[in-house]
Amino acid sequence: MAVTPDQQREIEALRAESQPTRRATVPALEEILYQPLAVLDHGFVRVVDYMGDDGAVVQAARVSYGRGTKRVSEDQGLINYLMRHRHTTPFEMCEIKYHVKLPIFVARQWIRHRTANVNEYSARYSILDNEFYIPAPEHLGAQARGNRQGRGEVLAGAEAKRVFELLKNDSEQLYAHYSEMLNEDERGAARDPARQGLARELARMNLSLNFYTQWYWKTDLHNLLGFLSLRADPHAQYEIRVYAEAMLDTVRRWVPMTFAAFAEYRLGGAHISARGLAIVKRLLGGETVTQEASGLSKREWRELMESLGREG
Amino acid sequence: MAVTPDQQREIEALRAESQPTRRATVPALEEILYQPLAVLDHGFVRVVDYMGDDGAVVQAARVSYGRGTKRVSEDQGLINYLMRHRHTTPFEMCEIKYHVKLPIFVARQWIRHRTANVNEYSARYSILDNEFYIPAPEHLGAQARGNRQGRGEVLAGAEAKRVFELLKNDSEQLYAHYSEMLNEDERGAARDPARQGLARELARMNLSLNFYTQWYWKTDLHNLLGFLSLRADPHAQYEIRVYAEAMLDTVRRWVPMTFAAFAEYRLGGAHISARGLAIVKRLLGGETVTQEASGLSKREWRELMESLGREG
Amino acid sequence: MAVTPDQQREIEALRAESQPTRRATVPALEEILYQPLAVLDHGFVRVVDYMGDDGAVVQAARVSYGRGTKRVSEDQGLINYLMRHRHTTPFEMCEIKYHVKLPIFVARQWIRHRTANVNEYSARYSILDNEFYIPAPEHLGAQARGNRQGRGEVLAGAEAKRVFELLKNDSEQLYAHYSEMLNEDERGAARDPARQGLARELARMNLSLNFYTQWYWKTDLHNLLGFLSLRADPHAQYEIRVYAEAMLDTVRRWVPMTFAAFAEYRLGGAHISARGLAIVKRLLGGETVTQEASGLSKREWRELMESLGREG
Amino acid sequence: MAVTPDQQREIEALRAESQPTRRATVPALEEILYQPLAVLDHGFVRVVDYMGDDGAVVQAARVSYGRGTKRVSEDQGLINYLMRHRHTTPFEMCEIKYHVKLPIFVARQWIRHRTANVNEYSARYSILDNEFYIPAPEHLGAQARGNRQGRGEVLAGAEAKRVFELLKNDSEQLYAHYSEMLNEDERGAARDPARQGLARELARMNLSLNFYTQWYWKTDLHNLLGFLSLRADPHAQYEIRVYAEAMLDTVRRWVPMTFAAFAEYRLGGAHISARGLAIVKRLLGGETVTQEASGLSKREWRELMESLGREG
Repeated sequence: MAVTPDQQREIEALRAESQPTRRATVPALEEILYQPLAVLDHGFVRVVDYMGDDGAVVQAARVSYGRGTKRVSEDQGLINYLMRHRHTTPFEMCEIKYHVKLPIFVARQWIRHRTANVNEYSARYSILDNEFYIPAPEHLGAQARGNRQGRGEVLAGAEAKRVFELLKNDSEQLYAHYSEMLNEDERGAARDPARQGLARELARMNLSLNFYTQWYWKTDLHNLLGFLSLRADPHAQYEIRVYAEAMLDTVRRWVPMTFAAFAEYRLGGAHISARGLAIVKRLLGGETVTQEASGLSKREWRELMESLGREG
Repeated sequence: MAVTPDQQREIEALRAESQPTRRATVPALEEILYQPLAVLDHGFVRVVDYMGDDGAVVQAARVSYGRGTKRVSEDQGLINYLMRHRHTTPFEMCEIKYHVKLPIFVARQWIRHRTANVNEYSARYSILDNEFYIPAPEHLGAQARGNRQGRGEVLAGAEAKRVFELLKNDSEQLYAHYSEMLNEDERGAARDPARQGLARELARMNLSLNFYTQWYWKTDLHNLLGFLSLRADPHAQYEIRVYAEAMLDTVRRWVPMTFAAFAEYRLGGAHISARGLAIVKRLLGGETVTQEASGLSKREWRELMESLGREG
Repeated sequence: MAVTPDQQREIEALRAESQPTRRATVPALEEILYQPLAVLDHGFVRVVDYMGDDGAVVQAARVSYGRGTKRVSEDQGLINYLMRHRHTTPFEMCEIKYHVKLPIFVARQWIRHRTANVNEYSARYSILDNEFYIPAPEHLGAQARGNRQGRGEVLAGAEAKRVFELLKNDSEQLYAHYSEMLNEDERGAARDPARQGLARELARMNLSLNFYTQWYWKTDLHNLLGFLSLRADPHAQYEIRVYAEAMLDTVRRWVPMTFAAFAEYRLGGAHISARGLAIVKRLLGGETVTQEASGLSKREWRELMESLGREG
Repeated sequence: MAVTPDQQREIEALRAESQPTRRATVPALEEILYQPLAVLDHGFVRVVDYMGDDGAVVQAARVSYGRGTKRVSEDQGLINYLMRHRHTTPFEMCEIKYHVKLPIFVARQWIRHRTANVNEYSARYSILDNEFYIPAPEHLGAQARGNRQGRGEVLAGAEAKRVFELLKNDSEQLYAHYSEMLNEDERGAARDPARQGLARELARMNLSLNFYTQWYWKTDLHNLLGFLSLRADPHAQYEIRVYAEAMLDTVRRWVPMTFAAFAEYRLGGAHISARGLAIVKRLLGGETVTQEASGLSKREWRELMESLGREG
């Protein structure tokens, strides 16, 4: 379970409050504010605050005194223009803050996006919960053959059974030993009065990378889209992709015009190289071009053909 | 005048709107939201959006599910602790956005603070207004003698008169020539149909650094405090300091606990060097220490004595 | 003239020195180290230091103990792969430092690239030289008609003459008044002993945006390529584009493999939107598609047709 | 052992090479270039590249054409001034690159310093080595009593014995299971041909946080000093502090003047709060001040008395 009943009560209490504000407000995002969106077996992502809306992008691009928005079609046109021509600063004028619960190995990929603000739960200061990630059977992928950095078929049968056993038993054993070394009960008293208990900052290192941590993560819309374009991509590891996908939904609620432009120009588009463009021109001119004659590697050729919707 | 009647009407229209929100809201800041706070002869700074409050700092430091706040004294104690021990990330969880109108030479100092988001009015795309900064008589400082980077006494008499004349006449002449080169009337038509008009991106370079520009500027609370500690400092140039001072007031409204900690540990405190500490210890031990025997330069000695409230 | 004889002598003295180093070294870049490359009428850009080479990119991507490089073709293949798949961090492992002399209005565009380190000549502390930018006759563009942010035809005849006169006379007058207000001679003594002289930090604001400033600017290879892809682009203003073009040459000398990948995947490539890809697929399938039926705006259609090398 | 004989040979090969360069060069740093400095039981830090020296700081502060340095005492004075007055940008003009091998839990603290460039060994792509951190007996601290985030006395006797057993056995078991799940031998072939092997990107999550990873880490001198002032501090966790201490030595070799200023104004200095300064003034005036009457909390009072070298 992602949140305890106590935590859910705290969340409900927050959701029940409402204040008047003069700030730009987005009802579709307010609807899900503070609500944990479940991800993986024990994780979640929830929006805990936001600043700005599509209008704030337009307002900044026009450096206006009032709301800055005009007719919907003009605003969408301006946002499309900004997205297409890489005018990134107006998108930096919106900000969003998430509370995320995620396995440590996912957190380690995520943190590589540096243009964000982070406050992580401190295992130096506090004790981690006994929660660890075990993949669902359909995600227990074998090592990919062609691609060293990916998964192939799903493991099955005895091999899958053995892997689940190892992952589960090791995690449980690690947590039991972690607790034993800490020697603290729920109220912080010694479980075994004869022992001092190992420092938390040391004991934590006995936990494995599938244990859950959590953090507050805040970033601007431009950098969020950069994160999502990399992490919602099919090449991203499944375990971070599901977080990115849940976040994509929050972006759609928050800034629908920006989301539409992002889908059109980034997610759904493709970057074609100089040689790739030359090949497209030859194909459009009616020539037959083969991979061998193209000057592209097999892999680049396959990627280009996929973008063009052709058989390799 | 900082804003035109039309702009003021747009601002009033924004201020008249109110929506319910589940987000953390700060009534004292809402009170002045969108209002231009006048700075210098034609400038202003106005808060146009914000995210979070003192509670958001506490909430992030505790990575909590609900509001995260406890009793006021505990929250203030935690915020003091964070400020004292340079735990900066919780302060990054609050964000604020300003609309600022400022002379270009001030903008050039300001922009050196890189951890912020900026959208500036584009003189490549649009035509700048005929507004330039002329210092008030009491701020027309002579070059400082001891400090190459500062002002001394205020100029007076014939010299002051001549300087005002030069500044004012040059600015007016530049704007007249700027307009002539552009050759555009208010609706963008040619004033003189026989001429094409110089490109805006070129004509703008004939304006001087005291002309006003404007931008949207957004940053987090931690970086804002860094900006303010440098720019609200007595060593900062007067023309940027007045902006910083107006912004300090907005911080006091927005996050009063953080402001109190900032005043106590940053603005009102002092950093004492290793040799400085050794001198303080000797003084506390009853020794007499002179600058000559201290090992400090005259300037460092004077700075130390000032911090200690002693005659140099 | 970009540098004075004294400055050229200082540069020559530096160039004459040589030390042995164990670091990665690039002879083709050493050749031009410290040499000012002239840009515009009084500006320059010169490489004053660098760290790393193409091998450092490869070494970081492989996290290797030694040089990390293999055969040239393998290294180029890896660099191409990194560039194509937006693996940006290995390119951050190379660093370069430039000394640039540039008009202030160019500096104001340039500084918007925030991921760089900058030390600018301080007009608060020192006195600026009497050097300002006047466009060459062939760059005196009229305001573009279709594009509010660009230049059209070159001004000629009486209009051009008048513009040159205004630009030149105003700049000269401003500098004369700047000097008068400062009231300092070459050695810092008062020119007119009856006057105190205006503070430098104020007097500078009477100079216009075509005056030259200079700075040390340092960035990593990844962020440099981002800067160059925006500023060496035909849509960039001419006066910054010429700096970018001079810097492109230094990149070609420094990291030829990375430069080749950059030319292939960034400079020479094109980003096609989702709807654009759909149109390309229809065209490849033999359909006739018109702008009207395409769902694209005229401008987007024109941009797409240009990428595909077709008549709009 | 930190590096294998093969790796040491690669390092020696690099160290044996030397090229002439026109760049600023620091013989004292060249001496240890590429050499691993051992840290913890299997870790190291080694300088793999650098740019600039103390002269580069001076040169940038003066925006000079030549080396920019004057007499040693003047340069040291300027560097002291810059450090004292928080003029940080000249220190950003020097850059350094380290190759670091470190336990994952240390890497997780380290990565929170965002203004740096990082390339980490990818356990998604490659297989991690069987190396994990076990504290030396004298560093096996018990949980601190007064400070939730620290260590107290060293564990001894049966409790220590049990902790070592748990840490060691768990790590060995995890690696054995990691290898079993991967099902790869040294050349990448299946150990058990009947099994497919779990994807590397999943198997890695069974390893614990004391396993070693490695990365290339590059930053500028200003941000490096910020990192060191926090991580070489007595409040930092021992396991990261030892890395910071090894790096302090490299800074002393590299930029001795900057190091001296850093030791004087940052490491050896203290920040005194507004109320703290008021207390110092009263003490200097001969008053007796007690904690109770001071307005400071017990903790702040103790910290102040420590800075002043007095009994609390």
